[in-house]
Amino acid sequence: MQSPNPAIALLLQTGVASVDGQMYLLAVLGISILSLVVAAGLARYVIAQDAGTSEMQKISNAIKQGAEAFMRRQNKTILALSVVLAVVIYIGYTVGKPDQPELAFRMTLSFVLGAICSTLAGVSGMWVSIRSNIRTASAARTSLNGALQIALRGGAVTGLSVVALSLLGVGCLFWFFGGLEHPQDVPTQIVAFGFGASFVALFAQLGGGIYTKAADVGADLVGKVEAGIPEDDPRNPAVIADLVGDNVGDCAGRGADLFESTAAENVGAMILGAGLYSVFGIGGILFPLVARAFGIIASTIGIFVVKTKEDADPMEALNRGYYVTTVLALIGFYVAVKLLLQGNMMLFGAGVVGIVTSFAFVYITQYYTEYKYRPVKMIAEGCVTGPATTIIAGFAIGLECVAAPVLVISAAIMTSYFLGVNAGLVGVSEQAAGLYGTAIATMGMLSTAAYILAMDTFGPITDNAGGIIEMSKQPKAIRDRTDRLDSVGNTTKALTKGYAIGSAALAAFLLFSAYIDEVKALLKMDHNAPFPIDIGHVPVFTGALLGAMLVFLFSSFAIKAVGRAAQTVIQEVRRQFKENPGIMKGTSDPDYGTCVDIVTISALKAMVVPGLLAVASPVAVGLIFRNFESAPGGPPMGAVAVAAFLMVGTITGILLATLMNNGGGAWDNAKKYIETGAYGGKGSDAHTASVVGDTVGDPFKDTAGPSLHVLIKLLATITLVAAPLFV
Amino acid sequence: MQSPNPAIALLLQTGVASVDGQMYLLAVLGISILSLVVAAGLARYVIAQDAGTSEMQKISNAIKQGAEAFMRRQNKTILALSVVLAVVIYIGYTVGKPDQPELAFRMTLSFVLGAICSTLAGVSGMWVSIRSNIRTASAARTSLNGALQIALRGGAVTGLSVVALSLLGVGCLFWFFGGLEHPQDVPTQIVAFGFGASFVALFAQLGGGIYTKAADVGADLVGKVEAGIPEDDPRNPAVIADLVGDNVGDCAGRGADLFESTAAENVGAMILGAGLYSVFGIGGILFPLVARAFGIIASTIGIFVVKTKEDADPMEALNRGYYVTTVLALIGFYVAVKLLLQGNMMLFGAGVVGIVTSFAFVYITQYYTEYKYRPVKMIAEGCVTGPATTIIAGFAIGLECVAAPVLVISAAIMTSYFLGVNAGLVGVSEQAAGLYGTAIATMGMLSTAAYILAMDTFGPITDNAGGIIEMSKQPKAIRDRTDRLDSVGNTTKALTKGYAIGSAALAAFLLFSAYIDEVKALLKMDHNAPFPIDIGHVPVFTGALLGAMLVFLFSSFAIKAVGRAAQTVIQEVRRQFKENPGIMKGTSDPDYGTCVDIVTISALKAMVVPGLLAVASPVAVGLIFRNFESAPGGPPMGAVAVAAFLMVGTITGILLATLMNNGGGAWDNAKKYIETGAYGGKGSDAHTASVVGDTVGDPFKDTAGPSLHVLIKLLATITLVAAPLFV
Repeated sequence: MQSPNPAIALLLQTGVASVDGQMYLLAVLGISILSLVVAAGLARYVIAQDAGTSEMQKISNAIKQGAEAFMRRQNKTILALSVVLAVVIYIGYTVGKPDQPELAFRMTLSFVLGAICSTLAGVSGMWVSIRSNIRTASAARTSLNGALQIALRGGAVTGLSVVALSLLGVGCLFWFFGGLEHPQDVPTQIVAFGFGASFVALFAQLGGGIYTKAADVGADLVGKVEAGIPEDDPRNPAVIADLVGDNVGDCAGRGADLFESTAAENVGAMILGAGLYSVFGIGGILFPLVARAFGIIASTIGIFVVKTKEDADPMEALNRGYYVTTVLALIGFYVAVKLLLQGNMMLFGAGVVGIVTSFAFVYITQYYTEYKYRPVKMIAEGCVTGPATTIIAGFAIGLECVAAPVLVISAAIMTSYFLGVNAGLVGVSEQAAGLYGTAIATMGMLSTAAYILAMDTFGPITDNAGGIIEMSKQPKAIRDRTDRLDSVGNTTKALTKGYAIGSAALAAFLLFSAYIDEVKALLKMDHNAPFPIDIGHVPVFTGALLGAMLVFLFSSFAIKAVGRAAQTVIQEVRRQFKENPGIMKGTSDPDYGTCVDIVTISALKAMVVPGLLAVASPVAVGLIFRNFESAPGGPPMGAVAVAAFLMVGTITGILLATLMNNGGGAWDNAKKYIETGAYGGKGSDAHTASVVGDTVGDPFKDTAGPSLHVLIKLLATITLVAAPLFV
Repeated sequence: MQSPNPAIALLLQTGVASVDGQMYLLAVLGISILSLVVAAGLARYVIAQDAGTSEMQKISNAIKQGAEAFMRRQNKTILALSVVLAVVIYIGYTVGKPDQPELAFRMTLSFVLGAICSTLAGVSGMWVSIRSNIRTASAARTSLNGALQIALRGGAVTGLSVVALSLLGVGCLFWFFGGLEHPQDVPTQIVAFGFGASFVALFAQLGGGIYTKAADVGADLVGKVEAGIPEDDPRNPAVIADLVGDNVGDCAGRGADLFESTAAENVGAMILGAGLYSVFGIGGILFPLVARAFGIIASTIGIFVVKTKEDADPMEALNRGYYVTTVLALIGFYVAVKLLLQGNMMLFGAGVVGIVTSFAFVYITQYYTEYKYRPVKMIAEGCVTGPATTIIAGFAIGLECVAAPVLVISAAIMTSYFLGVNAGLVGVSEQAAGLYGTAIATMGMLSTAAYILAMDTFGPITDNAGGIIEMSKQPKAIRDRTDRLDSVGNTTKALTKGYAIGSAALAAFLLFSAYIDEVKALLKMDHNAPFPIDIGHVPVFTGALLGAMLVFLFSSFAIKAVGRAAQTVIQEVRRQFKENPGIMKGTSDPDYGTCVDIVTISALKAMVVPGLLAVASPVAVGLIFRNFESAPGGPPMGAVAVAAFLMVGTITGILLATLMNNGGGAWDNAKKYIETGAYGGKGSDAHTASVVGDTVGDPFKDTAGPSLHVLIKLLATITLVAAPLFV
């Protein structure tokens, strides 16, 4: 069964069902559970470490309390919204599909399970990360390697549980819904799992993103700029809120983001695999899960490999782990292709394209956000002539930096598409074969997701550790150590964002195609029938225009929310400074709790409108445009206009998110570059200007940008779930 | 011939050619020539006015010299590029279409004529405007109405010559190429006229836009911020360059921009009209020209109506003129529909939709850029907490402000489409009929173009007049008068940008459809055959992605160019202040000429790369994608990918241009709002922050934003000209 030769493949088709679906599914579930056990073990390992001085614990506990209070309230809000939506889905499917009574139940169950797993992934990751920060700080007092390992392993708890929970959820639903008996029908019945995950992720990322930047911007403006005290100074009443923000935004938010990525893309790829049933049998459907399971194993080994010397660059150690993970993931991918895709080397090639793409994205992100290279230097130069030129230069870089990723993604999509077309898949339309190629590339890109996510969560842990060391006034040698880790953490956070948007772009096609496949199934059209999304047709073009508009409007809400919430922080801090002059003298403690509360309330209030806008818009477009006539002989206008809405919304989202992520990162590092002494260093006018750039970049790179990743995928999953409404 | 009833229309079809094409064409050419005579008369009227004191003339002459030197050099560069392109077009068509030897000649001639007319429109407009400024200033010493009328009539020279030259060029080519004998074939042969116009306009808008903002930003940063001297202070060596910039950017640039709008849209609508030959005969083809000719008459009358009392708001006088123009244009439109479109009331309705759309755009732009309303107030509030929150608030407003225009355009496109569908056009496909409806709406929107353009050019004239009054140290009462006119000029400039982008959006479909019609003609496909631009197909999606990317990259080049050129200004001014301390003391004159030269050189150097990028990209996409297989039975992939590139590029361009125009305008007016005394007024920290916002907004609203209008239409016209390459 390992020949890519189409003639032999044809001969083998009769034996195709002989791929033992049950065995592979069990293996996937087993590996997922094992990964959760490993994650639990890592959590135990972290908890067992020394928890520092009582001074340090006091700070850490304040962070823990703030983060947990926020998560509790946020989850309550999300839960309420989810229950409403679950009821809507149940009633919608019961009324709309009375001929398939079990579908309403299955959709609702999938949605609820997706929402629960997404919440769990976020909560468990944050649970460990707020316990890792103090232990990382404590270990930093004696050894760089100790601190590095605790931070990464703490991050790995998030990485492993996110990917394992997504596999477990999808795998269990597939089995429970009888996927082994009806493998072609079940994948479309679990799309709501991805939607549930995206729904929670959107609010988690939005709420957390607004929280973290409102606290950060507020604390910086009133502390660094107005009162002239350094970052993380314990006299700043907003400092704990700022540290809490790192956990709830960067950590829980990104965890939910990547959870829904893996969930949505697994389900999407399974739907495409179902379309190739005649070629690969159940193998094509289970391939995404098996490839991902191998990826988890590769990531786990990669995490354990990381070790640094006291005087080495910790980034090198993390990179070594990444290389090990990549090589192992590649081997695992090859094995999965051998076992499930008849060893089709063209499809393996598509997987390699995906892995190469993730490398390219990591490199491009580094080029645009590290101060060794031209872009950040250009912004730093702009700082010399004041804040206006700082902003102009940074915005120009943000606009520029979309070019390279788009070229890479274009090349990756086209290459994997043509590898798919030439994979010799007999009886499959050229388009379906090509799309499966892009799906395989996405699987390749995401095979290292668990490791990447561990590196990402490493960021807020080291950031918090640095804050604790700073606030508990440890000696300079120790602060230098946490500063080095913190700076590495900034890099890994930027890389993950590049990776997340790259995978979102590559996966976009997967999800579009899954949607089109589903609409075809609903209309009882042939799987290989053409389904043109003709944007040369006026109503379709209008749908596309509205999709692009949604992305701008959504970003506006996210950024305005940060501005508004930051204002409340600034006012509170000013009030405390005014009413209690002892704070600035260091004789009395500021009231950290009130700041935490204020940001919590503002952030949760602000996330509702953009969240609902994102959910309601595609449904509204579908319902409005279904009233228009379709092109003669073409598919119904509602479904087509929504597809255009989704596709052009995705294109715009990818560009705007890249602009915001990299622009924000570049401003941040232009400031860091000046702080190394360039253009007058700290305290110079250039430095003041660079702080303005950094502050502007904050809501770009940590609120709107990451929320757009989730938005793109939410649009894709909601259209999948709501598809019956549009036809 | 006036019945919209399809049955009667059918009966009348045999008599359709009886619309006397020659008579209408002669009328159009006559009205165009008459309008040029009126424009010349207005120029004479302006020149005959008092030219002020010798002190004022000294300043005015410096502006004139700088502007003329820039235009000379710029036109030389553009000329060189145009000659190269003309040769490429000639050779391309000779080699590619050897069976139609006359086509190469016709395309090249059209291109050259379009380029020449576009240059002429820019030059003549600026010629008058740099002579109107001093006379406006002089008149302001005695009467507000005198100044208002001189400034508007000076602006009207641009408005009338732009629209008349475009009609004259298109009309003459149509006649010369035998359009009266072969009305269906000729419109596609003159598409290069639009391309020539767009090509020149792109460079004029880019070069002028970079010049004006580099001088402005440079002068402000080094003058207002560093040296603490007011705007337009004669001690600032960059002040003349700044005033020159108003003429070459706002005036010549926008003139070329709207020239190519009217040219491209006339030709596009004629191509669509050719597709309806069976219904309207030559009437459908000549309709755009006749409607536009009536529009010129309406605008001329509107201009002569404007008159203000000494104590009235000059904006009200301008609005009265606009209302008169609109009502007359509506009547003219109705007459044109009666005469040429069989009095089809559905199509007249589409024209009304266009006129209503232009009103809506004017209103939306005012809402987002005037300080009476929430958006600007929100930015002003952000100024209180410093430059970072100023930028964040302004950017959020910029992102938000795309929503209303997109909804209006969506409604306008859909309504006019369905009016077209229901117009009872017998023997025409639903899609072609609907598209003709959107074309008619575009004609409606553009029928007031000459008046709008006159109001727009009014802006830089009053701006310059204010500068001359300020620099020649006139009494406060006179300065107040020019300040009032200047503030009205700011509003009209913002409105024109809203109008320009709105008409670009509405016209987008016209030009897409013209492109698709042309590709069909090249492929000898039936005019009513489907031609899906299926973005669900991977190569097409990739084309779309690249189109969106081009818009971002192009904007980045434009903004970077401003930053870079502004740096050269800052360095030069600093050098002069340092080497000649007498300048600041007011004892010796600064060297204005060097600043003018430096900006000229930087701006012209910087415009070449983005300009060529815009021209080369669509051609490159077409040539690359023509190597890919088309969908089974579908049109060739090269042509389809270019269409997706164009359409999604247009969508992205509309959104980004709106963000930049309105965001920039809002920042500008937040500053003005604070200067009225809000939040501490001039000199407060909020004011300093608002200056940062204003400076950031400058290259957005005056360089990148307007250049994107031209880019959108350049993409449309170049794809029309290069279409034979893609099939």
